Amino acid sequence: MSARYKSYKYIEDLSKYDGQEITLNGWVYNKTGKGKLQFIQLRDGSGVAQCVVFKGNVSEEDFEAAKSLTQESSLSVTGTVKSNDRAPGGFELDVTSLKVYQIADEYPISPKEHGDAFLIENRHLWLRSSRQHAIMRVRSVIVKAIRDFLDNCGFRLMDSPILTPNACEGTSTLFETKYFDLGNAYLSQSGQLYAEASAMALGRTYTFGPTFRAEKSKTRKHLTEFWMVEPEAAFFDLEDDMQLAEDMTVYIVKQVLANCEKELETLERDIEPLKKVVGGFPRMSYTEAVEWLQENKVPLIQKVDGVDKEIHPFPWGEDFGTVQEEALMEQFDQPCFIYDYPTEVKAFYMKRDPENPKVVKAMDMLGPEKAGELIGGSQREDDHDLLLERIQHEDLPLEEFQWYLDLRKYGSVPHSGFGMGLERTVKWITGAKHIRETIPMPRTIHRIVP
Amino acid sequence: MSARYKSYKYIEDLSKYDGQEITLNGWVYNKTGKGKLQFIQLRDGSGVAQCVVFKGNVSEEDFEAAKSLTQESSLSVTGTVKSNDRAPGGFELDVTSLKVYQIADEYPISPKEHGDAFLIENRHLWLRSSRQHAIMRVRSVIVKAIRDFLDNCGFRLMDSPILTPNACEGTSTLFETKYFDLGNAYLSQSGQLYAEASAMALGRTYTFGPTFRAEKSKTRKHLTEFWMVEPEAAFFDLEDDMQLAEDMTVYIVKQVLANCEKELETLERDIEPLKKVVGGFPRMSYTEAVEWLQENKVPLIQKVDGVDKEIHPFPWGEDFGTVQEEALMEQFDQPCFIYDYPTEVKAFYMKRDPENPKVVKAMDMLGPEKAGELIGGSQREDDHDLLLERIQHEDLPLEEFQWYLDLRKYGSVPHSGFGMGLERTVKWITGAKHIRETIPMPRTIHRIVP
Repeated sequence: MSARYKSYKYIEDLSKYDGQEITLNGWVYNKTGKGKLQFIQLRDGSGVAQCVVFKGNVSEEDFEAAKSLTQESSLSVTGTVKSNDRAPGGFELDVTSLKVYQIADEYPISPKEHGDAFLIENRHLWLRSSRQHAIMRVRSVIVKAIRDFLDNCGFRLMDSPILTPNACEGTSTLFETKYFDLGNAYLSQSGQLYAEASAMALGRTYTFGPTFRAEKSKTRKHLTEFWMVEPEAAFFDLEDDMQLAEDMTVYIVKQVLANCEKELETLERDIEPLKKVVGGFPRMSYTEAVEWLQENKVPLIQKVDGVDKEIHPFPWGEDFGTVQEEALMEQFDQPCFIYDYPTEVKAFYMKRDPENPKVVKAMDMLGPEKAGELIGGSQREDDHDLLLERIQHEDLPLEEFQWYLDLRKYGSVPHSGFGMGLERTVKWITGAKHIRETIPMPRTIHRIVP
Repeated sequence: MSARYKSYKYIEDLSKYDGQEITLNGWVYNKTGKGKLQFIQLRDGSGVAQCVVFKGNVSEEDFEAAKSLTQESSLSVTGTVKSNDRAPGGFELDVTSLKVYQIADEYPISPKEHGDAFLIENRHLWLRSSRQHAIMRVRSVIVKAIRDFLDNCGFRLMDSPILTPNACEGTSTLFETKYFDLGNAYLSQSGQLYAEASAMALGRTYTFGPTFRAEKSKTRKHLTEFWMVEPEAAFFDLEDDMQLAEDMTVYIVKQVLANCEKELETLERDIEPLKKVVGGFPRMSYTEAVEWLQENKVPLIQKVDGVDKEIHPFPWGEDFGTVQEEALMEQFDQPCFIYDYPTEVKAFYMKRDPENPKVVKAMDMLGPEKAGELIGGSQREDDHDLLLERIQHEDLPLEEFQWYLDLRKYGSVPHSGFGMGLERTVKWITGAKHIRETIPMPRTIHRIVP
């Protein structure tokens, strides 16, 4: 059987075919020309190539067809690959014939500036623009880097379920659906609890899938549907957890720098800050971070009667927001870990420090360049009775957590894990303006289409 | 910063440490012994190792601790790696000290036989058994094989959304959730329509994520939540589509045979049938298949008043069920493609054969060994007006499909894709008895926990 599809030629490989006659398939990205010459900028998803149609080299019908091409018209173009220093990519196609599939209707997205609302409304077409293209390609490289890193580290993929009977971090922010005769199911906010069960079975595991939050947040950093990778490992303590997060982050950045040179250029991303992400990330306990905020007069901001009020000095025990995170991160070129957070601001499943129960073995990794929180993780509470107490303290439905408590009855071990938000990572590395640009079809509280 | 976690030792690497003293961390899979000797079968997620505790080699406390170990108790064991032909894996650990984390409560899953209902109820623990282990490891290798194959073929990952405003294949089998002030959202049954938009942008793309069906099916092949990979490529016709599906399937089987020898052995999977999956899959048009069924007197089975009735000869135009698929597949060692199906039994988006509109350019790939349908795909309707007619004919909400119709207005091109069900593929390759065993936390109409 001939694998015909393997013989198709793509623009990213143009330099391999220097001097040969080949056929490219794609869409008109742009077109110029006058008199006997038409220049078609052809895009095929792998790149953009200049195709030169000279009246003397093609049939009359083909020349007329070339003249009639509109933006996003679809066609196959046959011609000879020639090097040309002035062509994008250094090669162009000297056209000998062409076959038009469709002359496109007037394309709504022209090279002129469009408003955000219009572009997102037309996301299915906006994806064709070179900037969105580049972000999507970087996204795919980041996903591959994450999976390769974890696979090569001995972590096994264990997909957590999306439909769950319980709420990992509170019930108010969950999407709910009727589940046959079994009552309601909720869309998972995190695969972690299941990842813990998997880690007790396979040692080192990860789950990587979509997660959901029905939060009415409207910041630039929030989507209602986003992807998260969550490694979980038996016998890892918080120290191991931070090191794994650091090594994974360094690997991701390295892979993007090695494989996305063209994309980062298209995005006009300054790569110097990325080159500095080489490991040895700074680490600071929450208490040290609070001391630094106090010394540097960074206040807690609290809304009082709808007005922001500054509270000096920043009180130990309060969670950090964007103001504190960005102030702290101004010191660093690399991501930074903050660890050992107050118990009261963190989730029930985090391990309390046996020597200081006011603190849990949690960590957040903040990104440089105002990237915000990229990773959140912790060592998990492995003591059955302490965990039970926390579940009861938070008024969680005990019945639903019996299986989770089982993990502390049958061979409980120290274990840790973290979650990395894919879209936030893509936003940081690509320098995308808005998190909406970092996922093919963004879902926000105001948008479920296309 | 020292990457301490990288220094941890795992059972799968035991042969590398022959003669060295190392520490292993894990759980008691089984224990035997008497007098001065205790044999611990330790599992750590990467394998099972025999750890020999001789009273003369350890402290008195450690020997007592070893004696007290119950199934699934957790511990670290230090000792010298020694080759021993009778030990599983060829090596064992001659223990010098041990540290117990927890003596496990009486473990509910003992080596004796348990009923299916009990095991699935305790899925979080059942995952620790060597058989479930093996299936999960094969699953992770299959996922990696799929992603590597497509990445290496120039396909770009483009995740489709889960929350969608429309129904790809009918509304009666959808999970529904309230979406803020925007009405209802539905959990995606397929990422295909979005994959088509992506293919128009990036040429060759794939989506790989969980999909959902609220069908009240109760067969051995159905889950309500399952993973599906869906490649989609611009300029591919049905022929290309089948070849891609074939190449991907061959690659998957090859990777499993190369990387899962131990797991297939644990599963007692006869690998001879898998070795025959080398490419050159048989292909048969639907019409040819019907003729074969007629010649071989395989009837259509229809329920009339609750009773199965055989209809001879099998009438052209009816869809195939398990009876017909298994009869057809008895001839073949490899998967087989059936293509060019009756328009009426297939989805609205499939391309009608211009020379015979009673038929669409659809294909199913059936697996050998009664594996059933592993892949379903088609060339997509690329004609705007024909597609519009089909949407109206099926009474689908036109408003919701405007963006999908846009893909046929702005540079429509021939394009094709398919969906491969991950769990069915895992079931076929591992020989698992039930589809419930092929996903970490199965969701069926009767089960949403753990």
